[in-house]
Amino acid sequence: MIIPPETLAELRYFQDEYIAAIDDDRLEDWPRFFLEDALYEIIPRENEAMGLPAPLLRCENAAMMRDRVASLRHANIFEQPSYRHFLSAMIVTGADESGIRLRTNYCVLNTNVEGSSAVYQTGIYRDVIRRTEAGWRFAEKRVIYDTSRVQTLLAYPI
Amino acid sequence: MIIPPETLAELRYFQDEYIAAIDDDRLEDWPRFFLEDALYEIIPRENEAMGLPAPLLRCENAAMMRDRVASLRHANIFEQPSYRHFLSAMIVTGADESGIRLRTNYCVLNTNVEGSSAVYQTGIYRDVIRRTEAGWRFAEKRVIYDTSRVQTLLAYPI
Amino acid sequence: MIIPPETLAELRYFQDEYIAAIDDDRLEDWPRFFLEDALYEIIPRENEAMGLPAPLLRCENAAMMRDRVASLRHANIFEQPSYRHFLSAMIVTGADESGIRLRTNYCVLNTNVEGSSAVYQTGIYRDVIRRTEAGWRFAEKRVIYDTSRVQTLLAYPI
Repeated sequence: MIIPPETLAELRYFQDEYIAAIDDDRLEDWPRFFLEDALYEIIPRENEAMGLPAPLLRCENAAMMRDRVASLRHANIFEQPSYRHFLSAMIVTGADESGIRLRTNYCVLNTNVEGSSAVYQTGIYRDVIRRTEAGWRFAEKRVIYDTSRVQTLLAYPI
Repeated sequence: MIIPPETLAELRYFQDEYIAAIDDDRLEDWPRFFLEDALYEIIPRENEAMGLPAPLLRCENAAMMRDRVASLRHANIFEQPSYRHFLSAMIVTGADESGIRLRTNYCVLNTNVEGSSAVYQTGIYRDVIRRTEAGWRFAEKRVIYDTSRVQTLLAYPI
Repeated sequence: MIIPPETLAELRYFQDEYIAAIDDDRLEDWPRFFLEDALYEIIPRENEAMGLPAPLLRCENAAMMRDRVASLRHANIFEQPSYRHFLSAMIVTGADESGIRLRTNYCVLNTNVEGSSAVYQTGIYRDVIRRTEAGWRFAEKRVIYDTSRVQTLLAYPI
């Protein structure tokens, strides 16, 4: 479970590329960060703690993520989110043949249509990341959020 | 005072482990980040600037930190904090036989019992960090906070 | 356009030094992060997106930045800002003889005179950074902000 510092730096950069793609509204790039059979889900902390299912968003492969992006692009969205993600506390929690396990604090600040910026959501990422010939990819990304008032914008990737 | 980049990366990771332990509610691990005779204190910026004492929390060694954790675990706490720390601007400000001196911006976002997330506290860490056989340890950690409305939760480590 | 990881680490540290100088109120150091003929501007996102000029602050060289600092030091400022910057998602977007291009998420949390801390501004930095004999320097720093309620404090560097 010793991860060389160069690998840690690469993983950090990979996470930075991931959040930059969302924040720059390059949603079409979002599924490309995942393996084809990757799991992506957004789940409230209470459910995670109690082992309950009921995620607010669950994609069981990258095709479902591409569908989600297509829906978002064609939906009549009342208020387009304007996110800025910030990450901290990215820690290795395990490593085996399935990949490297990471936990990372995230927060998303959002600026609403009136131009006011505020904390929108906090939580942690629980990721499994695997090296492929094309670079690092998420085999699993579980977004476990603390904040309960997140309904309206939740269709968006975090 | 030239710190090799590998060492900086290690110090950054050490800080990330520290905040992850607090945010994941592994408070029992908190004193383990310190040398046995380490100083930990949380002090308002005004007092720091004026050289006044009167910290809001002061532990003069790791034993006092363990006591603090035991108290927190047994206390009847009205509202359990739910922190997410974020760090930035970690800069080396000195290095000698006592250790490496760092200043780091921190913010803590908190999610209250209603599930609403907001900025709870901002400030800087002024740390002295020393390498031991068991890894890096704080010889001194001074938490100098900007925010004055922090009383109720202040018993918790930052 | 392959940037070695050591260089990325240096650029990250350079950005951290930049924000620490502002947050520690060492404004006199601020122009020293720039080449003498560097461009610095703070511009609202809408204007950037539409290719409009009208930045809220524009310095076309370091001399203008030094003037700006002198003005700020002598001005009768109603409410001194107390900033904490946080950076994330620092991504290389290009590299050529003019320097390395980076985009970086920033947020600034501010603590007002009553001691209350809140999100003050979010946005991105679009930087061109060049290596000189004296170290890294900004050839260009464009601060593109999301938040529209930023007028009163805008004279300050971000």
